Parts: sequence; structure tokens; C-alpha cells
Amino acid sequence: MLGSFTYCNPTKLYFGKDALDGLNEELPKYGKRVLLVYGGGSIKKNGIYGKVVEILKANGKEIYEDAGVMPNPTHEKLNEGVALARAAKADLILAVGGGSVCDYAKAVSVSVNCDDDPWEKYFINFDEPTCEIVPVGCVLTMVGTGSEMNGGSVITNHKQKLKIGHVFGENVFPKFSVMNPEFTYSLPEYQMVSGIYDIMCHILEQYFSGTDDNTSDYVMEGLLRSLIHSADIAVENPADYEARSNIMWTATWALNTFVAKGKATDWMVHMLGQAVAAHTDATHGMTLAAVSMPYYRYILPYGTEKFARYAVAVWGVNHEGKTQTQTAYEGLERMESWMKKIGLVMNITELGATPEMLDGIVNSTKIMTGGYKVLDGKDIRAILKASY
Amino acid sequence: MLGSFTYCNPTKLYFGKDALDGLNEELPKYGKRVLLVYGGGSIKKNGIYGKVVEILKANGKEIYEDAGVMPNPTHEKLNEGVALARAAKADLILAVGGGSVCDYAKAVSVSVNCDDDPWEKYFINFDEPTCEIVPVGCVLTMVGTGSEMNGGSVITNHKQKLKIGHVFGENVFPKFSVMNPEFTYSLPEYQMVSGIYDIMCHILEQYFSGTDDNTSDYVMEGLLRSLIHSADIAVENPADYEARSNIMWTATWALNTFVAKGKATDWMVHMLGQAVAAHTDATHGMTLAAVSMPYYRYILPYGTEKFARYAVAVWGVNHEGKTQTQTAYEGLERMESWMKKIGLVMNITELGATPEMLDGIVNSTKIMTGGYKVLDGKDIRAILKASY
Repeated sequence: MLGSFTYCNPTKLYFGKDALDGLNEELPKYGKRVLLVYGGGSIKKNGIYGKVVEILKANGKEIYEDAGVMPNPTHEKLNEGVALARAAKADLILAVGGGSVCDYAKAVSVSVNCDDDPWEKYFINFDEPTCEIVPVGCVLTMVGTGSEMNGGSVITNHKQKLKIGHVFGENVFPKFSVMNPEFTYSLPEYQMVSGIYDIMCHILEQYFSGTDDNTSDYVMEGLLRSLIHSADIAVENPADYEARSNIMWTATWALNTFVAKGKATDWMVHMLGQAVAAHTDATHGMTLAAVSMPYYRYILPYGTEKFARYAVAVWGVNHEGKTQTQTAYEGLERMESWMKKIGLVMNITELGATPEMLDGIVNSTKIMTGGYKVLDGKDIRAILKASY
Repeated sequence: MLGSFTYCNPTKLYFGKDALDGLNEELPKYGKRVLLVYGGGSIKKNGIYGKVVEILKANGKEIYEDAGVMPNPTHEKLNEGVALARAAKADLILAVGGGSVCDYAKAVSVSVNCDDDPWEKYFINFDEPTCEIVPVGCVLTMVGTGSEMNGGSVITNHKQKLKIGHVFGENVFPKFSVMNPEFTYSLPEYQMVSGIYDIMCHILEQYFSGTDDNTSDYVMEGLLRSLIHSADIAVENPADYEARSNIMWTATWALNTFVAKGKATDWMVHMLGQAVAAHTDATHGMTLAAVSMPYYRYILPYGTEKFARYAVAVWGVNHEGKTQTQTAYEGLERMESWMKKIGLVMNITELGATPEMLDGIVNSTKIMTGGYKVLDGKDIRAILKASY
């Protein structure tokens, strides 16, 4: 842990089959006016909406609604949500959904009492909130982003072809999150698998950085091993509670700031994936999967030692009689086979990217500097070409 | 994660070489009257006391002192501290020291505004605080207990020959902790190594429980591997910042409630070690080390699968061509060799336990039920006999 840092994560988590009861603990702490934020309405079909509304009413709350949050929440939708939250004079924003809904709720929460355009303020200029923040709580129905216990918020601007994340401080973290693994059962397999790879990618973005000796790397190897093990079970049997609960818990700890402490962190796969999504509107985890192998093969020579460590510690590669480079590539081969096996999309063509989009995607890709190689436009083009 | 649980850990951590600057962030949040709690005065020799006092004064604080907290804080000392905190009308209790000082500060914090005898209320009856709690902050100078980010507080009653821990809720957790690995350099090697084993034991107490598949077990394997790696470096060179910082961070995460989630947890080594300490006043980590091997060898047949997993995942035992039992015992042999190598005390005789104390230590040992075998008096006697 060579660097200096602070750590604080005050989000209260209610985890398990009866987690929704946690709302009865939390709701009395806030005023009467609750803005209920959700997505396309699947929570009405699976009954979660009804249960939440019942608990809100039992706690004497007035419910205001903000529905229709899309998988990649847009600038326009954000402006709409801010107007709804203002009209409702919301005391609490309750997000019921996956990471997009939680991300969006946070973006609304820091914009309600703020006159600036939120897209400009937070996602272009990366300003910090200077106005009063409306508290957010989450009821999680999809797993992957870790948004339930962090300050992350990703918004897409289709006109500008940009999908940008702002990582807010602990004052914007959800005050509480309800995590019932059973709430994720009704998710289509495509979404489940996409979420699993989002988790893996979050860990790898933090793992593949630095050459120092850091406790976080050992913890991440543990998280990865648990994730791979549980993902295999969940793909076979999506209603395996233990596997789904392990995946849910791993998602939270992959991105609640803990394993980043003392690390440089990379995030280049996310920059590439988000650029693809800005042009295709494809599912987040799948965009990450589709660019990962080309990216990792491209940077492997610059971080061979860590890739070899990854191969042995996570994928159980036997390194005896092999060079470090051979071991490292063998790890990526195992990872690639596994990704195909669980049903991830391995190229951006399948996600709707056309050759004509290449220039645009290159231009939409933000360059990060914490990985094993700082890419330039030529590198990005080469990686994206290999992703088609 | 088969069980249901809540998780909340609001402690803010300032970590690194300039961590003490964090006091300037935190002190303005509290009133003027600060009770400075510390131990035998080593912080005056190594300069930490002077630095803390300077920052307190620069922040306009009135300083009241409570010195002389002993390694195993006593019931009598606790009563004295409560009287001092009342007289000072403390707005904040600032603990500067190791786990004992932090533990003690928490016990004072829940007793200042309470009429009951704290020993009876919290450590015999395990009541929860019902009175206003004085906030606690910590400046850590010794690593091991994890007290800087949890609700744990252990107090010893020599008359009753009892050393008992109460695990308080998040309202009693330190509001902030300052963690500068350099502050631990001046610690004698005996104390450093004792702290390292305290950390290892905390992890193992949580690891050796249950037969379920739990993400926490994978994380704990990572923490253990990092700890062993860094401990080897720190024993060779106690001023290796990276190793000492990894050990400090591992200590916090070994016992800040994270890795216990969804687990049964054992804690029987602590019960045995605390009973030894109640009769000998020996250093905490050494009492744990001295009883561990006899305990683990005794319970191994009841949890062979987990002990074999431990051998492979943590100690790198090659399991090919071996029975699970052989693999499991080989792991314990590697652990035992390592414990001796880093200088841990491997028997309670060396800690001052005499044969005449045996009956008393057996009687002082509280029986826990979360491990692989629920012990009876006969078992405890056999384990303690093997610990002499």
C-alpha cells in the first residue's frame, strides 16, 4: 500500500432473502416525499414494485414516480428526472433496478438543487456537487455495476456520442441498499452474464496496474476465483441462491472503492467499451467483453509479470517449464475459453458496430494513464479493429 | 452468502505517511474538549504524542489526559477512565496507541453517560449502550486487533480471572482512524510478531467455520497470502514501508466485519488465548499462537475438507497423490514451521502458565459454537495440556 489514501464507505447494506424488510428500518429516517425511480417496468411483472409500494405506504410515504430509466441513461432523461424530483420536492430518491437506475438516481440527487446543466457540470467538467444532495436508497434487481455502494454514475449523451462516468464522493453514495439475490433471478441470461463480466472487468481494471506489492491484488485474486466458481454454477442453474448471492456480494466489493486503495488502476477497457456503447447503445458488460481480449493481448508485453501472476493465481495455470510470457498468454487463453463458455459476446460486430463507426468510436475513447501502457490513437484503432 | 445480514462500517480511514494530517479534517467536527487516551508513554519517546498535541492545539482544542492504559485494559482502569472522561466533559475521545487503547476508549465512550457498572453491563450481561455515546477517534501505533475500524472492546477482570470482548454496533465504531505505517516502526519485534499472529488468527477464526461456498473464504485466502508474504519481509526488515503498510491494511480488513459476513465464525482460539491471558497477563497475539496448533490439530478431523483447502490455497501444498487428511495436516505443518520461523511463542509455559493454573484456565474458557467441533471441558483440558 505505497500510496496515501482515505477510505470511507458509509452505505448500509441489507443482504439476503428478507433484505427488503430493511426498508422499514431506513424509511423512518427520511421525510414523507419519496421519488420512486425505476426502469422499463419489469419490476411490475416480477412483483418487486408491488412489494416496495406496500412498504412505502405502510411507512406513510407519499409516492412520486420516475419510470422509464433506460439501460444507458441519457442526458435528456436525466434532465427529465431532475424536473420530476423538483416537482415532487423529494425527501428521498428510491432507485429500484440495476446499476443504470442507481447511477441515474445519484445523478438526479446532485442536480435537483443545482442550476447548472448536470451533463456539463458533472460529466464534462467533472465538478463536485456544491448544492444540497437529496439522499438516495437502492433496491437492487440486477448485479454488476457496484452502484449500490459507491459514488459512480454513468450518463450517455447520444448527440455528442459520449458515455461518461463521474465518480462522486461518499456524500453521494446510497445511504442504504437492499440486496436480495432472489430479485435477480428473473433477469434474462444475457443480462446476467453481462453483469458477471462487468464485475470481472471491474476487478481486472484495478488488478492490471502497478508493479508494487499490494494486499488489494491478493484480495482481488480471491474475488475473481469466487466469481468464476459461482458464475459457472449460475449459468447452469440461474436459481442457485448461493451462487447468485456470491456473485451479488462480489459485485459490490469489486467496486466499492476497497480494492482500489493504494492501486494505480487502469479503466481502459471501460473507456473502450463505453465508446462502443455510445455508438451502438449495446449492453454495458457485453461491450467490455467484446474489447477485453484484444486489449489485454495488446498490453500483455508491457505487464507480463502481472499477467503471469494472474494466470497462476486465478486460472490455475501450471507455470513449470514455461517462460513468464508463455504462462501469461496461457492465462488469457483460459480466460477467453471461459468467456465463450458462459456466453459472452466476443466481438463488437455482434453488438452492432459497423466498420463505418470505427473512426467515431476511436474519437469517443477517453485515454486513461494508470494501466501498463498509455495508449495513443493508433493503439486504440488497432485494438478496436481486432475487436470487430 | 447463505445467511442474511446487514453491513455498515462508517469509520473514515486516513492511511499513509501523511495520515496524521487527517486530524485537521476531523477535529473541527467535534467540540473543544478532547480526552487524549494513551498507554505507557512510548508515544512520548517516539514523538507521536508531541505531533498529536500540536495538531490538537492548532485546532483550538482543550486537552485532558488519560494515560497508562495497559496492554490488557482492566475493569479498574476502565472505571478510572470513565471518571476522567466525565470530569473532562469530553466531546471527543482520541485514542493514541494500539488495539488495547482503542478498545479501552470505546468502553469508556459507552460508559460516560451511563450509571451502570460497565463491566457488569457490557462484559458480563452483554447489554447494548442505552446512553449517549461520546465519539471516539484513533491514531494507531500498533497493528493487529482491527479495533481501529470495528466495535470490538476487550476488558480484563483480574479478580474474576476473566478477559471478555464485547462487539458493539456501528454507533460505537471509531468515527475516524489515522493509520501511518511508520508509527508502528518503533514497536519491539516481539510486539510486531504478536500483532501479525493476531491478524492471522482473526482471519482463521472466521475461515474455519461452515462448509458452504462463500466469497468471504476466497477473500480471506487472499488476505492470508498477503499477510504471510509481508510478514516474512517485515521480520527481515521492520522498516520496510510496503510490508508494514500491507500488514496494517490486512489487520483492518481482517476484523472490520467484512469477511465475517455470511459466515458462522469460530473464535475458539481467542477464547482459549484470552483465558490464558486472564491468568498470566501475557501478550494477546502470543497467547493465540501458543494454543493454536493444539487446537487446530484437535479439530482438524471435524473440518478436514476446509483444512485441506487451506493447505493448498494458502500454503501451496501440492495435494496430488495425497489423501485429504494428509494434505490438511501438511498445511498445519507448514503453518507451524512458519510460526516458529517468525518468532511466535508456541507454548503457554513460556507465557507464564504453570501446571497449577490449568484448572483455572479451563474454567475461564468460554465455549463458542461456530467452529467445526463444539468443545466440552474435557476437550479444552486436552488442548490446553497440549499447549504447555
